[in-house]
Amino acid sequence: MAKDFTTMEENYSQWYNDLVIKADLAENSAVRGCMVIKPHGYAIWEMMQQALDKKFKQTGHVNAYFPLFIPKSFFSKEASHVDGFAKECAVVTHYRLKNSPDGKGIVVDEDAKLEEELIVRPTSETIIWHTYKGWIQSYRDLPLLINQWANVVRWEMRTRLFLRTAEFLWQEGHTAHATADEAIEETERMLDVYADFAENFMAMPVIRGKKTANERFAGALDTYCIEALMQDGKALQAGTSHFLGQNFAKAFDVKFTSKEGKLEYVWATSWGVSTRLMGALIMSHSDNQGLVLPPKLAPIQVVIVPIYKDDEQLQKINAYANQLKKELEDRDIRVKYDNRDNQRPGWKFADYEFKGVPLRIAIGGRDMENGTVELARRDTKEKHTVPQEGLTQEIAGLLTEIQDGLFQKALKYRDSMIHQVETYDQFKDVLENKGGFISAHWDGTPETEELIKQETKATIRCIPLNNPLEEGVCIYSGKTSTQRVLFAKAY
Amino acid sequence: MAKDFTTMEENYSQWYNDLVIKADLAENSAVRGCMVIKPHGYAIWEMMQQALDKKFKQTGHVNAYFPLFIPKSFFSKEASHVDGFAKECAVVTHYRLKNSPDGKGIVVDEDAKLEEELIVRPTSETIIWHTYKGWIQSYRDLPLLINQWANVVRWEMRTRLFLRTAEFLWQEGHTAHATADEAIEETERMLDVYADFAENFMAMPVIRGKKTANERFAGALDTYCIEALMQDGKALQAGTSHFLGQNFAKAFDVKFTSKEGKLEYVWATSWGVSTRLMGALIMSHSDNQGLVLPPKLAPIQVVIVPIYKDDEQLQKINAYANQLKKELEDRDIRVKYDNRDNQRPGWKFADYEFKGVPLRIAIGGRDMENGTVELARRDTKEKHTVPQEGLTQEIAGLLTEIQDGLFQKALKYRDSMIHQVETYDQFKDVLENKGGFISAHWDGTPETEELIKQETKATIRCIPLNNPLEEGVCIYSGKTSTQRVLFAKAY
Repeated sequence: MAKDFTTMEENYSQWYNDLVIKADLAENSAVRGCMVIKPHGYAIWEMMQQALDKKFKQTGHVNAYFPLFIPKSFFSKEASHVDGFAKECAVVTHYRLKNSPDGKGIVVDEDAKLEEELIVRPTSETIIWHTYKGWIQSYRDLPLLINQWANVVRWEMRTRLFLRTAEFLWQEGHTAHATADEAIEETERMLDVYADFAENFMAMPVIRGKKTANERFAGALDTYCIEALMQDGKALQAGTSHFLGQNFAKAFDVKFTSKEGKLEYVWATSWGVSTRLMGALIMSHSDNQGLVLPPKLAPIQVVIVPIYKDDEQLQKINAYANQLKKELEDRDIRVKYDNRDNQRPGWKFADYEFKGVPLRIAIGGRDMENGTVELARRDTKEKHTVPQEGLTQEIAGLLTEIQDGLFQKALKYRDSMIHQVETYDQFKDVLENKGGFISAHWDGTPETEELIKQETKATIRCIPLNNPLEEGVCIYSGKTSTQRVLFAKAY
Repeated sequence: MAKDFTTMEENYSQWYNDLVIKADLAENSAVRGCMVIKPHGYAIWEMMQQALDKKFKQTGHVNAYFPLFIPKSFFSKEASHVDGFAKECAVVTHYRLKNSPDGKGIVVDEDAKLEEELIVRPTSETIIWHTYKGWIQSYRDLPLLINQWANVVRWEMRTRLFLRTAEFLWQEGHTAHATADEAIEETERMLDVYADFAENFMAMPVIRGKKTANERFAGALDTYCIEALMQDGKALQAGTSHFLGQNFAKAFDVKFTSKEGKLEYVWATSWGVSTRLMGALIMSHSDNQGLVLPPKLAPIQVVIVPIYKDDEQLQKINAYANQLKKELEDRDIRVKYDNRDNQRPGWKFADYEFKGVPLRIAIGGRDMENGTVELARRDTKEKHTVPQEGLTQEIAGLLTEIQDGLFQKALKYRDSMIHQVETYDQFKDVLENKGGFISAHWDGTPETEELIKQETKATIRCIPLNNPLEEGVCIYSGKTSTQRVLFAKAY
């Protein structure tokens, strides 16, 4: 299973790629930059989707579906938006193929050229706000709280499985509000939803903050984000929530009649997370034995493997294992009993370990005599022989313990990797030798931010929310600064 | 709500369009032929997805995700496949836009032309079988039972909301097997899954059958289908399951080593249902008062509406209604309590009626004194005053009764609309004056099928499974025939 598997210490980047492939999560496809999400990877994504979708609905959102294609002219309507996305989009120009005149294969039919080209959506603000114009007339139509699960395409030149792909899966929320305050409240609410999901489901601690003007979403007045730290000391932006002001309402002329009878432009937010979270999940917990999954997102939480010498022994184990499986399922624990006879127990152990199943139960003939099983934890690799009596209770407790343990471990690591520096030399030293987040004073100008980025490849990941005001001196320009910001090299 | 709503009798086609729009199910978008699925419509689609996804998983399938784009050359590899799909596909030719030289808007960047054009998937056999080549080596890798939920694009010239749209949502199963028998068994199994879903969830009776060679999926050896009858007497193909033989395995060179050590081509199936089912659902049960939903697919199964004179009365009703809501939810009944104060009860009644909520509970001040509520059924429009005691039990029973009732009603109608004819004159008479399915003898030739289609617009919907063999004479050619087939005009 773990043959030819690079260790994290050898080469973290290679370790990641090997892991994604060898744990059957995803692979590159025949189409440049597009991935195939394999069944094991997709099952984890489905767990993420379910948990997020539930949270969206609990906070009053409904799902809908908007077209894959966006007329080219829509992009030009919001000036900064088009600058942000035009450079990396797939363009549909024709709607038919025909047999090649030379009889070899098929060619584009030039008679079937579109009058206006269509863009494969890189994000849906424009088509959605064009649609909202028909849906919003009065304050009674607000707030409009809609989410979409969809595929989007951004023509990235350098791609990596899950982290940066030309096509990816995501959700994009698009809400409309009567006031700026309500829209900002929504922007922050959804950031909290993301942070809660990251910490309580992915067991991945995140820092909530705002992006600098340079790093804002194209068309936003304010971009909020959650930033996580990967095991190699690089940061990863795990989700964003944008306060769009009235930019898209103005671009698409969406006005409403207020309670006071005035005609006003609508206020907007948008927010999204994507299959990039799969990369974040992998790089938060996994190790040199493969994937480590937090129980809440593990498609299989417990696997049961029989170890038997003959059919008679197997029958006995089957009877017990099926009963145990049923009891666990009654507690809503996702369990698989793997009594396939074409693979040996050792092979199965290695396979489930590599694929990140949180708990493994092995049952042998001796166990059946003694009324015990062997319980192995994926996270700590501890193995214990435990009594069959009270086992389901024990397992339920252990799954909670593993979930908490993974979060605490990641939190401890993350906190140990936030370095406070006072000078640019310290900054570069930490960046080179330690990695992690660097908390430093910055003069607040895009110019300084850009120069630091060019010289060190570190970017301002965020200005943490509730950041304490603190007088200081910019590490780069020496100018006065009112607060620290978090820098890091990032995915 | 139902203002300007055309009746079924006036104009069935207009009634359908009005209903889709006015019940907030979907609308046309700014992109030709692409629809926006609105929240109410999408919520019903989500119910369908959940039920189907569960059935797929219960029959051993897993989900995965393959790229949106397919390299043009892949299409040419399976000869009949390319003929079937090349004429109606969206073609991506460029990957970048740039500012227009005249400063007005944006234009396609001719420097960013793709070496090979990409097709937006109209169906995924080619890209998936290309991928399967890497996944299948041995009989141990089989069967491979994979499903994908995705959007697809077919550039239809004449579109109708849900029934025929350029982009639509669907699932496509793609399975690989070691033997023809196993693949045929899978093809039939999935047809049964679809039929079971149609009848037990959509309350829509279907006929299981095989398509004639003319109507087969491009690349299939055999296409199985379920055919339903709409209220206007036209048939609708609700789902298809294809036995693909070794066509795609040969086109993409996918071989496996059998148990006997021989290298053989893999056998394939594919099967799909789409948002077209939304159209089928609407046209199976709805009426001149709007949408009628079978309880199993209704996002809201029960709506509770308070009728009150003052705040004191409302408080009392609130207390009871919230308790009732909780009790219903404990029985997994989807319930909404609508005590918004900005709409009157009459408006709410009409709105929920139009949107197809199966059961409405109205509670007034008098009801609270008498310990009763008013229960209204959407399907029969019956209203009854019933005691609050035992209400949740009553409601659970009624939902089952409504589900069954809708199916029985649709079945009775469908069965009454299967007409047996012996001559072409009878055939044309029934087609013109009655509609429905016509059971008639056919000589088995594509030529006759085509001529009948040209002359009458009726097509052979299917050769029903387990069709009795019966000697007869083709209604068109007079040649001998061994069995009857089902003709109809169809959506």
